[in-house]
Amino acid sequence: MKALVYNGPRDVQVKEMPDATIEKPTDVLVRITSTNICGSDLHMYEGRTEMETGRILGHENMGEVIAVGKAVDRVKVGDMVCLPFNIGCGFCENCERGLSGFCLTCNPGTAGAAYGFAGMGPYSGGQAELLRVPYGDYNCLVLPEDAREKENDYVMLSDIFPTGYHATELAQMKAGDSVVIYGAGPVGLMAATSAFVKGASRVFVVDSHKDRLALAEKIGAIAIDDTENTGVEQIKELTGGQGADCGCECVGYQCCNMHGKEVPNLTMNNLVQAVKPTGGIGVVGVFLPQDPGAQDELAKEGKLAFDFGQFWFKGQRIGTGQANVKAYNRRLANLIQAGKATPSMIVSHELGLDQAPEAYEKFDKREEGWTKVILKPGK
Amino acid sequence: MKALVYNGPRDVQVKEMPDATIEKPTDVLVRITSTNICGSDLHMYEGRTEMETGRILGHENMGEVIAVGKAVDRVKVGDMVCLPFNIGCGFCENCERGLSGFCLTCNPGTAGAAYGFAGMGPYSGGQAELLRVPYGDYNCLVLPEDAREKENDYVMLSDIFPTGYHATELAQMKAGDSVVIYGAGPVGLMAATSAFVKGASRVFVVDSHKDRLALAEKIGAIAIDDTENTGVEQIKELTGGQGADCGCECVGYQCCNMHGKEVPNLTMNNLVQAVKPTGGIGVVGVFLPQDPGAQDELAKEGKLAFDFGQFWFKGQRIGTGQANVKAYNRRLANLIQAGKATPSMIVSHELGLDQAPEAYEKFDKREEGWTKVILKPGK
Amino acid sequence: MKALVYNGPRDVQVKEMPDATIEKPTDVLVRITSTNICGSDLHMYEGRTEMETGRILGHENMGEVIAVGKAVDRVKVGDMVCLPFNIGCGFCENCERGLSGFCLTCNPGTAGAAYGFAGMGPYSGGQAELLRVPYGDYNCLVLPEDAREKENDYVMLSDIFPTGYHATELAQMKAGDSVVIYGAGPVGLMAATSAFVKGASRVFVVDSHKDRLALAEKIGAIAIDDTENTGVEQIKELTGGQGADCGCECVGYQCCNMHGKEVPNLTMNNLVQAVKPTGGIGVVGVFLPQDPGAQDELAKEGKLAFDFGQFWFKGQRIGTGQANVKAYNRRLANLIQAGKATPSMIVSHELGLDQAPEAYEKFDKREEGWTKVILKPGK
Amino acid sequence: MKALVYNGPRDVQVKEMPDATIEKPTDVLVRITSTNICGSDLHMYEGRTEMETGRILGHENMGEVIAVGKAVDRVKVGDMVCLPFNIGCGFCENCERGLSGFCLTCNPGTAGAAYGFAGMGPYSGGQAELLRVPYGDYNCLVLPEDAREKENDYVMLSDIFPTGYHATELAQMKAGDSVVIYGAGPVGLMAATSAFVKGASRVFVVDSHKDRLALAEKIGAIAIDDTENTGVEQIKELTGGQGADCGCECVGYQCCNMHGKEVPNLTMNNLVQAVKPTGGIGVVGVFLPQDPGAQDELAKEGKLAFDFGQFWFKGQRIGTGQANVKAYNRRLANLIQAGKATPSMIVSHELGLDQAPEAYEKFDKREEGWTKVILKPGK
Repeated sequence: MKALVYNGPRDVQVKEMPDATIEKPTDVLVRITSTNICGSDLHMYEGRTEMETGRILGHENMGEVIAVGKAVDRVKVGDMVCLPFNIGCGFCENCERGLSGFCLTCNPGTAGAAYGFAGMGPYSGGQAELLRVPYGDYNCLVLPEDAREKENDYVMLSDIFPTGYHATELAQMKAGDSVVIYGAGPVGLMAATSAFVKGASRVFVVDSHKDRLALAEKIGAIAIDDTENTGVEQIKELTGGQGADCGCECVGYQCCNMHGKEVPNLTMNNLVQAVKPTGGIGVVGVFLPQDPGAQDELAKEGKLAFDFGQFWFKGQRIGTGQANVKAYNRRLANLIQAGKATPSMIVSHELGLDQAPEAYEKFDKREEGWTKVILKPGK
Repeated sequence: MKALVYNGPRDVQVKEMPDATIEKPTDVLVRITSTNICGSDLHMYEGRTEMETGRILGHENMGEVIAVGKAVDRVKVGDMVCLPFNIGCGFCENCERGLSGFCLTCNPGTAGAAYGFAGMGPYSGGQAELLRVPYGDYNCLVLPEDAREKENDYVMLSDIFPTGYHATELAQMKAGDSVVIYGAGPVGLMAATSAFVKGASRVFVVDSHKDRLALAEKIGAIAIDDTENTGVEQIKELTGGQGADCGCECVGYQCCNMHGKEVPNLTMNNLVQAVKPTGGIGVVGVFLPQDPGAQDELAKEGKLAFDFGQFWFKGQRIGTGQANVKAYNRRLANLIQAGKATPSMIVSHELGLDQAPEAYEKFDKREEGWTKVILKPGK
Repeated sequence: MKALVYNGPRDVQVKEMPDATIEKPTDVLVRITSTNICGSDLHMYEGRTEMETGRILGHENMGEVIAVGKAVDRVKVGDMVCLPFNIGCGFCENCERGLSGFCLTCNPGTAGAAYGFAGMGPYSGGQAELLRVPYGDYNCLVLPEDAREKENDYVMLSDIFPTGYHATELAQMKAGDSVVIYGAGPVGLMAATSAFVKGASRVFVVDSHKDRLALAEKIGAIAIDDTENTGVEQIKELTGGQGADCGCECVGYQCCNMHGKEVPNLTMNNLVQAVKPTGGIGVVGVFLPQDPGAQDELAKEGKLAFDFGQFWFKGQRIGTGQANVKAYNRRLANLIQAGKATPSMIVSHELGLDQAPEAYEKFDKREEGWTKVILKPGK
Repeated sequence: MKALVYNGPRDVQVKEMPDATIEKPTDVLVRITSTNICGSDLHMYEGRTEMETGRILGHENMGEVIAVGKAVDRVKVGDMVCLPFNIGCGFCENCERGLSGFCLTCNPGTAGAAYGFAGMGPYSGGQAELLRVPYGDYNCLVLPEDAREKENDYVMLSDIFPTGYHATELAQMKAGDSVVIYGAGPVGLMAATSAFVKGASRVFVVDSHKDRLALAEKIGAIAIDDTENTGVEQIKELTGGQGADCGCECVGYQCCNMHGKEVPNLTMNNLVQAVKPTGGIGVVGVFLPQDPGAQDELAKEGKLAFDFGQFWFKGQRIGTGQANVKAYNRRLANLIQAGKATPSMIVSHELGLDQAPEAYEKFDKREEGWTKVILKPGK
């Protein structure tokens, strides 16, 4: 099969690889029809992780089931399925509580597995023609009849829509709240969409990329241009000095200041200021336990100079981590099916698998207009 | 009336002060029968805060109502009452949601007021013969008939018992969980007591003071001696390598390493390691937004070098801040009345008000055996 | 002042009554600008309750503050305020937990007080020029600057919008859920609005009045005409045989079957069928502990022949009771202010106070088009 | 293998049956070492259900794994396991949310499957030498090293301990609450035990069997003798007229009045009275959708004459249904292992499998002292 392989920093290639197959009786085999490039793919692409060369990337996957193992009872050949980026077993202590992003079975020794991801187990990614899905009955979201018609919406259920939603859940957002979101990238925009779905009264989206802020406004958010580092003041002014009711971090460790320099603690410390006392903060932007490539000494060991005193004094709360996609994907699928959510609005490019290397390059440079790329291996 | 007055760093004095009185129709006037010295009194005593000289200290208060304002409907003269250390109005946006520790009325411009406390409004403390209680109907917990008999238990409802309980709530502890608590001081011991009340299977209490660890064992906890900085390993070993299900920080910014040096990020970073992935951490130890007296550069501006990457990767959650005492004091009073909790077990000294200066001195030096002091102004 | 007085069954009259005044230092006096007629006013109007003659009706009130008692700190003369129909003290065991609909102070011997309501204490209603508001700091929602401009929206915060929202909370509705609502009257429509605010994927509204079903469709709901008693089957068919994820009862004890006969257990037993296993049911329609005027023997003593076996077997949950308006009115006000909710869409008539008797008569007959009446005493 | 077979009403027999085997790759085969007789076995024994003759009874099972299917990854031969009475798949919409008692896969057309149970699928029970466990990785709770030593405690994790705990969860009980429990049978006693584990201040257990009330007192509860139908008054008197904070129904449809006559609505209507306004009621006693054998006309169609008006007016909540055992069994196992809970205290008889028919007979007659029987097939 054809697949996108990681050769090393900023070097990815589409080449022939052995076909994915059914390896265990609980496996499902999927012919990929849509697979996105994610911002976290860029962490690997840039060589900022310990990703092994020769592996297939891609954790935002959707496709058609073409074979099932002998122990698979629910999923059928022909089903259109969307695959959560996390791989869970369904029966460990974490999965049984719905914490499928922290499965203790699929990546022994740590908590959490994923397709084509550094440090998340040996699983091949889905930027390929075929994908092996372990524990298929547990991991496949079988899509409704309009799956192909709304494919660009449903594929977002693999990661960024549930991840954005997770941010609002971690932030303990409720109907009527005002919400401040740092980051107008795909995840930030999905967090804003989720906030509106859940009845936010006002959503402030903070970024310094004007094309992304324009998208935020398009979905009804109030765009806060932080180019001059005035985001916190703007939000305070708009909220009577109190700050927003809650906040979401959708940027991660590579956040940059107005001079384009990485300042890893920038968004978190801004959020502590921009959120009111007792407010919750949900953090889905990725922060790394170690980051040897960082310039900052603290950042090398995964530390932030965090305004803990202010955070404590304000009695705030932080929730973190990868989204447990299965906790949300069914209900978000309902919203897509009912026409209440159209996450495809952020898609900027639909490309063939062969165009993936070029897409990585442009997306990595954050070229204007390259918001979200969907690869279509079958086309 | 006689009262304990703050003259300046490490200088407190019992002297005659004008009698507390009813100043507003919603006030209640209380003759203090028990008032504790709290670890956070020591922050002020040591001059680490901006406490004004001439003010009366004391925020853990209990006594008998001797007068009520004209707008007071519920509280009656003669009632024995315990006063939450936080002063709330009962009708602001935070109080009405039960966040009485973050009242927006009683200390305008910030969130939260308290008796005799730096930065928490102009209210006099209760280490005195009389105390004025604002919004008396809201702030007085009227005690049951056994109030005088179990006075040393009920007075703990003013702060440390609810604060310890709050730690377990912020940590989202549930029955059957294992819990790791940093700090075997009064608050840590109350957190351990609370954890057992709520059905903890195992409670690990980490400290390096042997007298305090002995108290922890007395209430059924597993004492973890961290003198050699091996607490994290000990807990991992006792939990099959995973870490405890959740954790509580009951030490605060003045935590010290094995050499007695203040290392403000020590307990938090240890907790991130000692708690399992997806676990919650409740932080009731005090951290300051600024600490000009600190040696550490980050600490001066209230920052910690926090293992945010590890924290995020493990998908943990942190809840912080002062306990909303009213959220818990009724139910904890029920437990005292039913004989299910006896927080007085930590009391080491019962003294007259005149002995307060000596008590501050010894408690501040953490002299062995000075766990918790109750002052009895009436005696 | 002029006020609408209850003279007896189906006999109300606008006449001169003594002016409402400040009676206690915690009182606030309000000049009423909008006051609605509620479906539960009709229970009293019809003589189905023990309402005392000579009392002023009206519990959905809004107006301008014209005087405040000496103990009132927050509310100011000139403030535009909306009053929750429930009267709470703010400091009893229930109010302090946010259960302001079950105040233990304001109506001693029972739990819960209200303006102008049978069995809910001695308080006069607001279908009058003036209204005395007890515990004004606690009970007044101070409205934002656009209060007069959106008056017909904000007045709905006194009862039906929070009550509809409460139904969805009691039903434990979450984003993505399908919801079935029995009753397309004002409360049912507000429940539907609330469900959409909170991200319902589909809302089924069941009724047999075509004008009301048309309103339900106008807000995006799926109208289910139950004239032929086929509502349950229709819902099952639309949900793959499972039933809706959760349900709301917005009719109450006077629900009628297809022949116009009161069948008090009809909606509840239909909901048990129409909601899926493990689903929640929120009941805000009024059911009475006794109903001597009922024809049914069970109903006379407040009993229903309830399908408890089916309910248990399906593992469903029921939450009931009056809305704690203060638990929701601030956040719903935010949504009105932000233009995210316009509850005034259900208003059919704006009338002067003098027209109230005629309005009661027509509303009681459920004349077509009489959905919701707002009285404007000042005009 | 030997197994207890249901021949018809009040006729069970131990006889040779075909060995249970691995039928699917996800199966686990268990040699039963302990299997309890449950109160709900008596419903089948008495012929009050549609149980098919020839089937093996027994849904409270524990034993040693002797074989695993090819798709089983977690459970190993030799593991001591306790089996939840409900059988779940782990991947359906309900199981993935932790509602394993309402699995949509294992008993198609309804929600929920169980071993040896009428209407809960074709699965054989465990009152036998061997048991086939479907979806073994999901359904087996692997026990810790002290499994055999505390076998009579751990076996209670199959049903009654989690069921009693579930009652307190459905009742939304919190630390400090007072709790009233109707029924001092095994489930009621486990509910009382659970309430104490979770920090209840006082637990009232209502029954009219003196031996059972004595057991309730032994675990620290306040026994309320309802022989004279004065239970409600006693509880009101002990709670200052308010009623308990929450309540649990642990009796079910066969509850009897003081004359020994079945009065199906007795416990529910008493609970509405005995629980305070806004309190929660958890119902784990079994109520049937139909009960053709009942004397009462309503009961035949599964209806209760329920005090719905009183229930609504008090703003109470009801949660119902079978316990989702997997939601609790790990944490309850922790408590057993830590010595914090010893559910075996209710065991009155340990018998061989051959003695099962006699045990059914005596247990069904509620002979004094026959509280709970464990069968030991291996002995």
